[in-house]
Amino acid sequence: MDDKEIRVFAPATVANVACGFDQLGFALSHPGDEVVVRFTDRPGLVITHITGADGKLSCDPRENTAGVSALAMLEALDKKDLGIEMEIHKKMPLGSGLGSSAASSVAGVFAVNELLGRPFEKKGLLPFALEGEFLAHKAYVADNVTSSLLGGILLLKDVEHNLDVQPLPVPAELYAAVVYPQVEILTKTARAILSPTITLKQHIEQSGNLGGFIVGLFKSDYDLIARSLRDVVIEPQRAHLIPHFYIVKEAALHAGALGCSISGSGPSVFALCKGNDIADQVGLAMQQVFQDAGIPCEVFVSAINTEGAIKL
Amino acid sequence: MDDKEIRVFAPATVANVACGFDQLGFALSHPGDEVVVRFTDRPGLVITHITGADGKLSCDPRENTAGVSALAMLEALDKKDLGIEMEIHKKMPLGSGLGSSAASSVAGVFAVNELLGRPFEKKGLLPFALEGEFLAHKAYVADNVTSSLLGGILLLKDVEHNLDVQPLPVPAELYAAVVYPQVEILTKTARAILSPTITLKQHIEQSGNLGGFIVGLFKSDYDLIARSLRDVVIEPQRAHLIPHFYIVKEAALHAGALGCSISGSGPSVFALCKGNDIADQVGLAMQQVFQDAGIPCEVFVSAINTEGAIKL
Repeated sequence: MDDKEIRVFAPATVANVACGFDQLGFALSHPGDEVVVRFTDRPGLVITHITGADGKLSCDPRENTAGVSALAMLEALDKKDLGIEMEIHKKMPLGSGLGSSAASSVAGVFAVNELLGRPFEKKGLLPFALEGEFLAHKAYVADNVTSSLLGGILLLKDVEHNLDVQPLPVPAELYAAVVYPQVEILTKTARAILSPTITLKQHIEQSGNLGGFIVGLFKSDYDLIARSLRDVVIEPQRAHLIPHFYIVKEAALHAGALGCSISGSGPSVFALCKGNDIADQVGLAMQQVFQDAGIPCEVFVSAINTEGAIKL
Repeated sequence: MDDKEIRVFAPATVANVACGFDQLGFALSHPGDEVVVRFTDRPGLVITHITGADGKLSCDPRENTAGVSALAMLEALDKKDLGIEMEIHKKMPLGSGLGSSAASSVAGVFAVNELLGRPFEKKGLLPFALEGEFLAHKAYVADNVTSSLLGGILLLKDVEHNLDVQPLPVPAELYAAVVYPQVEILTKTARAILSPTITLKQHIEQSGNLGGFIVGLFKSDYDLIARSLRDVVIEPQRAHLIPHFYIVKEAALHAGALGCSISGSGPSVFALCKGNDIADQVGLAMQQVFQDAGIPCEVFVSAINTEGAIKL
């Protein structure tokens, strides 16, 4: 038996990036999840233990996103009976709007793919990672999974008909500050409150912002990025789910952020910034607002992660 | 008196480019309008004659888009009483959805700016050209005017709050085929039939296409351009205004067009193509459909005009 052990990391991600609802995502350098896999004599995939999840995640591989994604791949390879042990180390908050389930799902399938000597290229793992995400959200939500696997800033041009994922340039000085206030928002609730229609005027403004953001990335035009990081459609409908959201946003912009909006479906709030120093200050400014309101709050400041999932 | 004479050309333009309603425009190399200006002793701007308009345009400078744009600039310079003669040579069809009024408006102000030794830089003429366009459409419609003045493919990121115009890269082999079937569509009517709302799903698909189109231009990725040149919002609402539209579109795609949609608010139909030869074939294929249906139809095949208005 091959006694090698593989340890991988899959990063946290920000989806629904302001003007890019269901379309823009990016990966953080940290936090993220680690998964360890090794061969074992007993046939089948077993999850031996999970750390950092406070007992909230199942060790049944069919009920765990990391297990489901790995099993989907093993099934495609007709290797479901291969003996594999998996450890999951959650190193990021669950239910935070930072793609926790996506990071686990990506880490699970990415780890097993490495263990098997890469039968799939990285992008080929997406469909399996999506199966894991399906377990968590009962829908094929691609933005977090894609960003966590591939890294960078991604445009999901079309996920309805096929996975048309376009990597966008990452300007050298672009940093993210993310705060996770410990309030609970169910993705399901955050979806349900969205109006199924928007005005044509909103559409024009929002997609103009999406276009401007993309051009800004290609040209490293930080002013244009700042003018474009605006959400006139989703943020106004969800802001009330996050206590003090507009004060947090104001604090971020005041501290020099290019833009600030809700990460995924919240409660985390992200800001994009020019330079690490500004991102540090923006992170602290946002955290301060939550702390002053008595809400415990974690901060993550990070460059944009351009690698995605990696072997450690 | 300075006896120099200035002759300028301002090109026809395609606005509402498929996925970019009110947001994307591009300029054609031809057709377009020519305006000739010279100083004269009699104070004030006079339009001495107009060719190619079948008597449909007024020689009163306050009732003619070329006159209005020029007067707006002269007023800003406090030179309204300067004696200037203007000739307008319409070399493109009126009411065609190819920005006829915009081309005249741009040519008028651009010509007088040249005559005066360029008191304004090119982009600075936009507000004056918009005044001319206002006369034609009773609204500040910026896409045709901007494209005719500046050339290239433009993203109008924000025209509601300020003129945030972003030039996009023009891939070397991108050509346009445009057909103008001689049926009448009033811009007013074409606007009025549009639903004031769209679904969130449509918004996501349409702005994904806009994003994909922009990325495609930056990467000269013709396949991505083709996958993105789709309009799920406006075209379905306006297609019935153009007889046989879907057959024309089918013919264009069958002949190899990357994409095909309505130019401006019609009745012209444009296709973007990779290479001049394909554009020629696409133009003929589209024309054939209209001709078979007994509708007279002009064809224009053109590289993307990257200069905009020029002095001849």
